[in-house]
Amino acid sequence: MQEVAEHAGVSIATVSFVVNGTKRVSPQTQAKVEAAMRELGYARNHAASALARGRTDILALLSPALERNLSGTGMEFITRAAERALQRGYKLVLWPFDNQASSVQSLIASRLVAGAVLMEVELHDARVPALRESGLPFSLIGRTLDPTGMAWVDVDFDASIVGTMKDLLGLGHRRIAYVDFVLGDDPEASVFAGAVRARNAYIDTMRSVGGSPVLLRCPETPWDGRHLVSRLLADHPDVTALVVMNEHAAPGIVLGLAAAGVRVPEDMSIISVGTTSMMAAFTDPVLTHTVSPARELSRLGVDAVIDRINDPELPLPQILLPCMRASGESVAPPRS
Amino acid sequence: MQEVAEHAGVSIATVSFVVNGTKRVSPQTQAKVEAAMRELGYARNHAASALARGRTDILALLSPALERNLSGTGMEFITRAAERALQRGYKLVLWPFDNQASSVQSLIASRLVAGAVLMEVELHDARVPALRESGLPFSLIGRTLDPTGMAWVDVDFDASIVGTMKDLLGLGHRRIAYVDFVLGDDPEASVFAGAVRARNAYIDTMRSVGGSPVLLRCPETPWDGRHLVSRLLADHPDVTALVVMNEHAAPGIVLGLAAAGVRVPEDMSIISVGTTSMMAAFTDPVLTHTVSPARELSRLGVDAVIDRINDPELPLPQILLPCMRASGESVAPPRS
Repeated sequence: MQEVAEHAGVSIATVSFVVNGTKRVSPQTQAKVEAAMRELGYARNHAASALARGRTDILALLSPALERNLSGTGMEFITRAAERALQRGYKLVLWPFDNQASSVQSLIASRLVAGAVLMEVELHDARVPALRESGLPFSLIGRTLDPTGMAWVDVDFDASIVGTMKDLLGLGHRRIAYVDFVLGDDPEASVFAGAVRARNAYIDTMRSVGGSPVLLRCPETPWDGRHLVSRLLADHPDVTALVVMNEHAAPGIVLGLAAAGVRVPEDMSIISVGTTSMMAAFTDPVLTHTVSPARELSRLGVDAVIDRINDPELPLPQILLPCMRASGESVAPPRS
Repeated sequence: MQEVAEHAGVSIATVSFVVNGTKRVSPQTQAKVEAAMRELGYARNHAASALARGRTDILALLSPALERNLSGTGMEFITRAAERALQRGYKLVLWPFDNQASSVQSLIASRLVAGAVLMEVELHDARVPALRESGLPFSLIGRTLDPTGMAWVDVDFDASIVGTMKDLLGLGHRRIAYVDFVLGDDPEASVFAGAVRARNAYIDTMRSVGGSPVLLRCPETPWDGRHLVSRLLADHPDVTALVVMNEHAAPGIVLGLAAAGVRVPEDMSIISVGTTSMMAAFTDPVLTHTVSPARELSRLGVDAVIDRINDPELPLPQILLPCMRASGESVAPPRS
């Protein structure tokens, strides 16, 4: 910086203002400093300015989902978050590590980022205490069991599942089964908070109408969806509708039903929840579905952390958005 | 560092060895230094050590694909690259910006990363000259028109398409159409080098057997795949086989053919190239397909840049891997 200052005939402080944008200088001075920087091959140095200013223009998106086969919806979240960060003048880097505290601590210690956005939040998410302790601004796309005192935006799975169930009940369906997913090999490993809340909303709704819940869990692949069908038809022959929160298995379920001579929607109604319209269009009939508000939640989640960076005193956004109903051809009244 | 050295009763150099891992110290000394760091709340500072050592343990994956709806295969590349970086002790951050030189220059100027891996490489990729000029170690997953003097690993699309064509020609197919994709709204905008090489391999093979190429381009969605079918049947009624390099349109093409009463594979054979087995299983019949060697190429691409970081004098890997043939049910001899 001293070289640049001497070369441009200005003070080191002035060079610092220009480099770090910490204070306005006249266009002439700006031009002189920039010319000197070019001539001396002085590259604006993030590491240096991060130390100088104690902040960077980088956000981390913590998404352990990368460890498994990311769904169309998960991809939508990441894409939109990256877009929004750019719009706000930040760079979004993906931190594709597990939900353990250690992976967050390495991020915090690195001092590389000005803030973090967490995805795939668990009910008891080990990343959250580590972040709260660090003081690093962060927001959740999702919710822990008790998100008090944090900035979070989440899909309103409760309302979305209740709405989906009301649609099916309104058509006369009474035996409605619910299909969600398994993370990894352990059927009990799935603690993704949204999945737990959605499942509970289904169970509560079934009980509220005097029905008994039929819970089916399926790995997130189309061939597992095909295999699920024989189990469904053998164990629950009276089921007339499926609520599927498993967008990779859903097309397989449709194919498995067709192979078994079960017509959709005449013999079996299917609603795919929290998916994308592209995933819903991979089958014939096109799946009646609800679309996860990925674009809005990513925007709100990124805004939440950037707003905290700019003003830690701002009120904490705590926002629920429902899935949006989308048309399809896979729902009809139950066969009488 | 001086504080830590005094507190631990060791030299500043010793603290530096521990912090930057630049030299082994005895377990006792290590423990003393780490205790002092804890007591003083000294966080290992990436920005500082980056300046001190002139390097970081971060790699950037430059993947403009995030700007569009990323395919299952693209996701596989990113997932595997992140895994491999972790195995080699590096963190992989996603740099989801366009293929313009400016987005690379901001990365270079930031000095945040030790190296870069480029994906979605174009024939004349503006990122490459910027990186070569900078001296930042990088590798390509893909290839420019002339990749001489660079570290690259790529799908051998030429061999893969030629092999796929040989299979269809061997079964007796002569009228074989080729479906690839359109990036953005401009049909001519797709300059993804792999797409160009694959298309040319198809054209050359058709000409080599005295056939005339039938090129169809389709946006990467299942509904565009459905719409493509009517165009195909109207303009090219004698086509008996499709080579599809468009994994999101392929399921739509199968559905469109079924809706038009065209049986797969009895009336029309389909091979989906450069996809994943999950995408191929979304349809009935399951698509005969070739699987992109995403796992191997990501591993090799990440290794290539890390090896350059550790030893700039190492020979440049230049590796081609073919797609792997995978079984399916969508190919048969042409209807006689």
